Amino acid sequence: MALIVKKFGGSSVATAEKIMAVARRVLQDQHPGDQIVVVVSAMGDTTDDLIALAKKIAPEPYHYTREVDMLLSTGEQVSIALLAMAFNTLGHPAVSLTGPQAGVISNVVYTKGKIVDITPKRVLEELDKGKIVVVAGFQGINALGDVTTLGRGGSDTSAVAIAGALKADSCEIFTDVDGVYSADPRVVKDARRMKEITYNEMLEMARLGAVVMQPRSVEMGKHFGVPIHVRSTFTQQPGTIIREEYTVEEKEFIIRGVTHDNDVAKIAVLGVPNRPGIAYTIFSALADANIDVDMIVQSIRNSETNVIDMVFTVASSDLSQARTIVEKIARQLEAIGTLVEEDVAKVSVVGAGMFGSPGIAAAMFGALSEAQVNIEVISTSEISISCLIKESQVKEAVNAIHAKFFPTK
Amino acid sequence: MALIVKKFGGSSVATAEKIMAVARRVLQDQHPGDQIVVVVSAMGDTTDDLIALAKKIAPEPYHYTREVDMLLSTGEQVSIALLAMAFNTLGHPAVSLTGPQAGVISNVVYTKGKIVDITPKRVLEELDKGKIVVVAGFQGINALGDVTTLGRGGSDTSAVAIAGALKADSCEIFTDVDGVYSADPRVVKDARRMKEITYNEMLEMARLGAVVMQPRSVEMGKHFGVPIHVRSTFTQQPGTIIREEYTVEEKEFIIRGVTHDNDVAKIAVLGVPNRPGIAYTIFSALADANIDVDMIVQSIRNSETNVIDMVFTVASSDLSQARTIVEKIARQLEAIGTLVEEDVAKVSVVGAGMFGSPGIAAAMFGALSEAQVNIEVISTSEISISCLIKESQVKEAVNAIHAKFFPTK
Repeated sequence: MALIVKKFGGSSVATAEKIMAVARRVLQDQHPGDQIVVVVSAMGDTTDDLIALAKKIAPEPYHYTREVDMLLSTGEQVSIALLAMAFNTLGHPAVSLTGPQAGVISNVVYTKGKIVDITPKRVLEELDKGKIVVVAGFQGINALGDVTTLGRGGSDTSAVAIAGALKADSCEIFTDVDGVYSADPRVVKDARRMKEITYNEMLEMARLGAVVMQPRSVEMGKHFGVPIHVRSTFTQQPGTIIREEYTVEEKEFIIRGVTHDNDVAKIAVLGVPNRPGIAYTIFSALADANIDVDMIVQSIRNSETNVIDMVFTVASSDLSQARTIVEKIARQLEAIGTLVEEDVAKVSVVGAGMFGSPGIAAAMFGALSEAQVNIEVISTSEISISCLIKESQVKEAVNAIHAKFFPTK
Repeated sequence: MALIVKKFGGSSVATAEKIMAVARRVLQDQHPGDQIVVVVSAMGDTTDDLIALAKKIAPEPYHYTREVDMLLSTGEQVSIALLAMAFNTLGHPAVSLTGPQAGVISNVVYTKGKIVDITPKRVLEELDKGKIVVVAGFQGINALGDVTTLGRGGSDTSAVAIAGALKADSCEIFTDVDGVYSADPRVVKDARRMKEITYNEMLEMARLGAVVMQPRSVEMGKHFGVPIHVRSTFTQQPGTIIREEYTVEEKEFIIRGVTHDNDVAKIAVLGVPNRPGIAYTIFSALADANIDVDMIVQSIRNSETNVIDMVFTVASSDLSQARTIVEKIARQLEAIGTLVEEDVAKVSVVGAGMFGSPGIAAAMFGALSEAQVNIEVISTSEISISCLIKESQVKEAVNAIHAKFFPTK
C-alpha cells in the first residue's frame, strides 16, 4: 500500500476524451490499497482563452492581478470536477478539491504566488474514505482568503508540495516526454533516458537550458525529500526518478546530462582602464534593472597599459535593455568600446560526481576541439561546466560532447 | 448615501461588451457616497455549455451533484472577475467575491442548495474601503466547506439575501422586462406596469403562472423586509417595487394582476361510491410520488346512489405519472372511470385587497361569460381567484378579465 500523488498537465486533460483516458490510466496503474491524489491543470488552452476574454475588457488584465487569479483559477476547477466525474463514472469514488480546499496556502502575491504551507486535512479525510482525491494544481489561498495562482509550472509545484505534506511515497509528473534525457532528443539521436538523477543535477540542468521540469518544483521536492517521477502520459515506460541520491547502478555516467541554451547573448566591454570597482559598477547597474548575468570572464587586454576586457552573458530577452545600460557605463569607465553578439549559445555538462573526477573539463574541451567548435567563454560550477560557442554550431557541439560521455556500445 | 444591491442575470453579462455596459450603467446610476454591491450570474449560456461538457464524461452528470456544483460555480466566478476588471478599467475600484467569500452559507444540498445564513464580513470590509463589491450569485458554501449552487433563480435569491443581511436600502433586480405587469404583455396589449406590488401578491402571481421573479427570492425579500426593485437592464424606466405594503396611490386597482398558466392538466375520477377517505386515498398517493395537486373539486354525481366525481389539476409535466397512479386507485375505489384533459389552462386574478371587496369573483365570472369562455373548475385563495378553462381560449379570457379590472381611460 502506497500513497501516490500524480500530476497531469493541461495537454493531458485537453478534451473530455483525454480526461477519461487519464482516469482509466490512473485506475489501471493503481495497486490494491494504494491511496491516490491526482493534481491537474486547466484543460488545454483554457488559460490563454480566459486571458484573451479578459483583454476584451481590460487591455492590460495583469494590472488587476487579484482578478486575473479569480478568473484563471476557474480553469483548474473545471478540470477537477470533470476528472472526479470520470472516476465516479468508471466506478471508483472520487472527490474534487480546489487548491484552497486542499490546504495549499500561498503568500499574498497574485499571479505568481509561492506556496508557504500545506494543510491537507481535507485531503487526508477523503483518502481515508477510500476516495481518489482530485486536486486543482496551480492555485492556493492566501491570508486574505483570496485564491492565488502559482505562476509558470505551478501545477508541478502544487503536486510536489502536496506530496511532501502528505509524506507521499512518490510524486509522479506525467508529461509529454517520458523522462529526463542525457541531452535533448531532438538534437541528439542517441540521447538516453536516465533512470535517476539528483535534485541538484536536475536544478542545474534546468538552469542551463533543460525544460522538462520547472526549478521551483524540483526545489520543493528537495525540500520535502519527495522522489519526483517524471514519466509519459502516453506510455507505460518507467521514466526518470529525481531524488537526493542514486539508488540504482547507473554510475558509469559521471556526467548526467548535456544541455544547451540558445537564449543567450554576449556583451563585451573592451579596453577598460583597470581599477578597483569596475565589475561592481557594471554588474550592480544590471542587477538594479533586474537583469541576470550569467557567465563572466575578465581578461587582461594589455598588461603594460593595465587595460582589461570584461565579457559576460545575459538572456537574449534582456539584451536590448542591458546594452543601453552597459554602453552608458562603458563611456563613464572610458572603455574603448562595447561589443554585442547575439548568435551565441551555451553548451554544458552536468554531473554531481564531476568534482571528484578530474579530466571532465578536458574531455569536454577535447570533444569540442575535435568537432572544430571554438570556445568563446568557459564557466564552471561545482556540478557543471559550460562553454559559450557560436549558435550555428550547437548541434555538432552537443552531439560531440554527448558521444564523448555517453558512448554507444 | 444608500447601500444598494444590484443583480444582473446571465443575458446581461453574456459578452465582454455587455459586461462593460453593465459596469457603465452601474457607475452612471451611482449617487455620490452610494455603496454598491453587484450580484451577477454566469455569462449567457455558460451553465448549459458546462453541463454539455460534463455529459461527454458522465452521461448523467446530476448523479454527481457535488461535482456539478464544483463545475457550474466556475461560471459566476468568471463573470465576477471580468466585471470587477471592467469597473477598475473604468476607474472605479472594485473587487470580486465568490459566494463563499461573500459569506453565503447554504445547507448541504447540492445543485439546489438553500441559503441558511449570510455572514457578509468581507463584503462590508470591501465596501468600507470604497470598493464596488461584485459577488457571484447562485452559489454558496456549505458546512463541509464545499461550494453549492442554489438552483433555478438562485442569483436573485443570493442578491435579495445579501441585501437583507447588509440591511441594504434596496435590491434592484435587472432583467429583460422592465417590471411586473398587470398581465403578460405578450398576451394583453394594454397590460400596465405596476409601480408597486406586495410580496404576497407577487408570490401568488408567481404560483399562478407569472414568471418575472422566482418565488424563493420574493420569500427572502419578505423575510428580510428588503424592497425588491424589478427593472430593465436596457432602459432607465423605474420598474416595479415589491414590498410589504403600498406606499404610492395606486389603490384604484384592487386586482394587481391577471395571470395565466398553460402548464396544467385536468384529471377526473368519475363515479366513485362516496365513503370516507376517498380524497385521502387519491391525494396521499400523489403526494408520495412528489406530485403537486392544485385545484380540487369534489362534486356529487348522483345523490340517490351517493356517487361522486373528483376533479383536480396537476402540472402538465406530472400528468403521465399522475395518470398511472390515479387509474390504479380508481379501480381500487370502484370508480366508473377516469378522464384526462390536457388542453386546459388556468386564468387567475390576484390582489391583496380582494378579501374586503365583494364582487370581484362575480366580475371575473361575468367577464368570462361575456367572452363566451366556459369555466370548468373554480378555486380561490385569500388573495386570488382561479378558473380552469380551455387552453385555446386563454387569450380571450385574459384580455376580457384584464379589461374588466384595468379599464383603459
